[in-house]
Amino acid sequence: MTESERWMRRALRLATKGFTAPNPMVGCVLVRNGEIVGEGYHFVAGMPHAEVNALQQAGERARGATAYVTLEPCCHYGRTPPCTKALIAAGVRHVVVATLDPDPRVRGRGVAELREAGLSVEVGVLEPAARALNRAFFHFHETGLPLITLKVAMTLDGKVATFTGDTRWITGQKARNYVHRLRSQSGAVLAGIGTVLADDPRLDARLPGRPSPRQPLRVIVDSHLRTPPCCAAIRLAQQNPQTYPLLIATTAPQPPKELAGSGVEVVTLPSDSAGRVDLHALTRLLATRQIISVLVEGGPTLHEAFLKAGLANRVLFFIAPKLVGGKSAPTAIEGDGVATLAEAWQLSPFTVRRLAPDIVLEADVLPAQSRQVRGEE
Amino acid sequence: MTESERWMRRALRLATKGFTAPNPMVGCVLVRNGEIVGEGYHFVAGMPHAEVNALQQAGERARGATAYVTLEPCCHYGRTPPCTKALIAAGVRHVVVATLDPDPRVRGRGVAELREAGLSVEVGVLEPAARALNRAFFHFHETGLPLITLKVAMTLDGKVATFTGDTRWITGQKARNYVHRLRSQSGAVLAGIGTVLADDPRLDARLPGRPSPRQPLRVIVDSHLRTPPCCAAIRLAQQNPQTYPLLIATTAPQPPKELAGSGVEVVTLPSDSAGRVDLHALTRLLATRQIISVLVEGGPTLHEAFLKAGLANRVLFFIAPKLVGGKSAPTAIEGDGVATLAEAWQLSPFTVRRLAPDIVLEADVLPAQSRQVRGEE
Repeated sequence: MTESERWMRRALRLATKGFTAPNPMVGCVLVRNGEIVGEGYHFVAGMPHAEVNALQQAGERARGATAYVTLEPCCHYGRTPPCTKALIAAGVRHVVVATLDPDPRVRGRGVAELREAGLSVEVGVLEPAARALNRAFFHFHETGLPLITLKVAMTLDGKVATFTGDTRWITGQKARNYVHRLRSQSGAVLAGIGTVLADDPRLDARLPGRPSPRQPLRVIVDSHLRTPPCCAAIRLAQQNPQTYPLLIATTAPQPPKELAGSGVEVVTLPSDSAGRVDLHALTRLLATRQIISVLVEGGPTLHEAFLKAGLANRVLFFIAPKLVGGKSAPTAIEGDGVATLAEAWQLSPFTVRRLAPDIVLEADVLPAQSRQVRGEE
Repeated sequence: MTESERWMRRALRLATKGFTAPNPMVGCVLVRNGEIVGEGYHFVAGMPHAEVNALQQAGERARGATAYVTLEPCCHYGRTPPCTKALIAAGVRHVVVATLDPDPRVRGRGVAELREAGLSVEVGVLEPAARALNRAFFHFHETGLPLITLKVAMTLDGKVATFTGDTRWITGQKARNYVHRLRSQSGAVLAGIGTVLADDPRLDARLPGRPSPRQPLRVIVDSHLRTPPCCAAIRLAQQNPQTYPLLIATTAPQPPKELAGSGVEVVTLPSDSAGRVDLHALTRLLATRQIISVLVEGGPTLHEAFLKAGLANRVLFFIAPKLVGGKSAPTAIEGDGVATLAEAWQLSPFTVRRLAPDIVLEADVLPAQSRQVRGEE
């Protein structure tokens, strides 16, 4: 590992502390004469960027320093002024960038501006790690759609509830904390109406020791508007519309008055051939709202619909060391399913993580197969 | 790691090459002046034991050597003469034993006999590993019952077939080869009548590059004698009754003539409260036939019945990186299942193994929970 890579690794670690959607997570380390003179990360959208935080910490010591930044510094005025100008003004001499920013407002212009001002710029140090860190951000800017992750919590025998519908709790505290962190980092959290009726989830992010974490947009996919007006997700929106907005996606043309209201938005979308919400239309709608990542938390019917639509990019399965059995117990992914194993949705090799006592298997849904199945609909 | 542990580790590795059921797997390394003068392992029941193979290789060089043996040398005449006598006769001076033999015909007597003959004996080097290696053998001699493992091959979403019943193949070649190896090492392989009717399995062990591997006793659990006389499992028994014996466990009092016959034995057992074969009676029957390990290969109803009966000791789940969905697709474990998560069968922490592209999760069924559920029946 070179010295550049060592500093960049530190910047990448700093970046992961943020809850920045729809912005990317970014970390920055300022080094002069082999010593860190300042470091920072982007915490939440609307707050200062990583470079600005690091420069502030460094003060005068930034002059002549090298900045290690996990993403190309921005060069446009957004909610905060451009970082390129701040780096130049502070007298930074060298900038090492892990990867260019795919945002069309930046995409190489940040680097060009730094070079024009006489700074030396190196691009590409630990680029794969930097792209993986902001996978949703790159996916969004490269495809125009949010990165869609199907999340499942199941027993080893594939059940997401017992045959009586008992779901609390399948996984342990560590896994549940991890899911809340994922929610806080996601642009939106989705649930189907079946899950809302069965479990009455709040769909918010609750992090231990962090009283007001960033909240995702909460979305209920409810083709025929069966969401109970007094359900937990709606109550939360009514109590605090700014923090806990809720979107109900439906095909019903005229939302009843008791649903729409403070914090709750009912959107009528086209229906698919089965009369359900067209998930392509929903995904595009979320994209227009700068939602770069979506965590689909079930149920089994919605998961299958996202796979059938070819929209699921990734799966995240939390597996508990338990067995519940039951021919009628609901399982991870239902709907009609595929008829033959040749038509199965193929996944990339599993990434394995332990969140004791549970295990987490993560994989990408391979796109060729999604296309094949979509073509057969 | 001490020198003793180093040699014992080598002996343990040698031991794993055997297919020895109902005997234990045993390895032996003979060392003189820091050099291996002979080594061997027990290959298959009825063939020479590890010590004898190692002594044969060493010849005269065994005189004064130290023998590292993964299990206490036997002191009784079985299908082969006692190893204690062979070690003494060869002039071995020291014997290092990983663990005592739980077989009541040995259990410390082997060590005593060696000591009486003037050899120095050390017991307990790498004992946990040696017990794990022959877990079924210890379980059998300590409980009087075979070690019962539920084996499942499923997609990530918990399905063992598509909704149309397609099962070939869920897992890849490496996982399937591993299962055949497990079959060859198991005392018996069991399948329920549902699986026989759906998949028509042979239930034999087929190992690449090994033309005639050791075969397990094949068992079909068929409460109402629905096994088709022309099924693959029966045809195999008829073609070669010596190598491929088949046992059909039923509650039907009078087996039809076309089933019983060369290589096929139909055994009538008591029924449980649901009118199915009493699995406790079946397990005891297998124990009387010196079956020390049973691999239960499904289907989902039989798996659940073994869990409900409190007889399942271990689960082995092969998970393929595929999704098939389907509300009606069969899942890993069915039957009625448990009503609440509090009643779920609890498992030990997972052991994870990769057999690309699949992953294998192994765990023990924790006995306290099995007892609790059994008590509620």
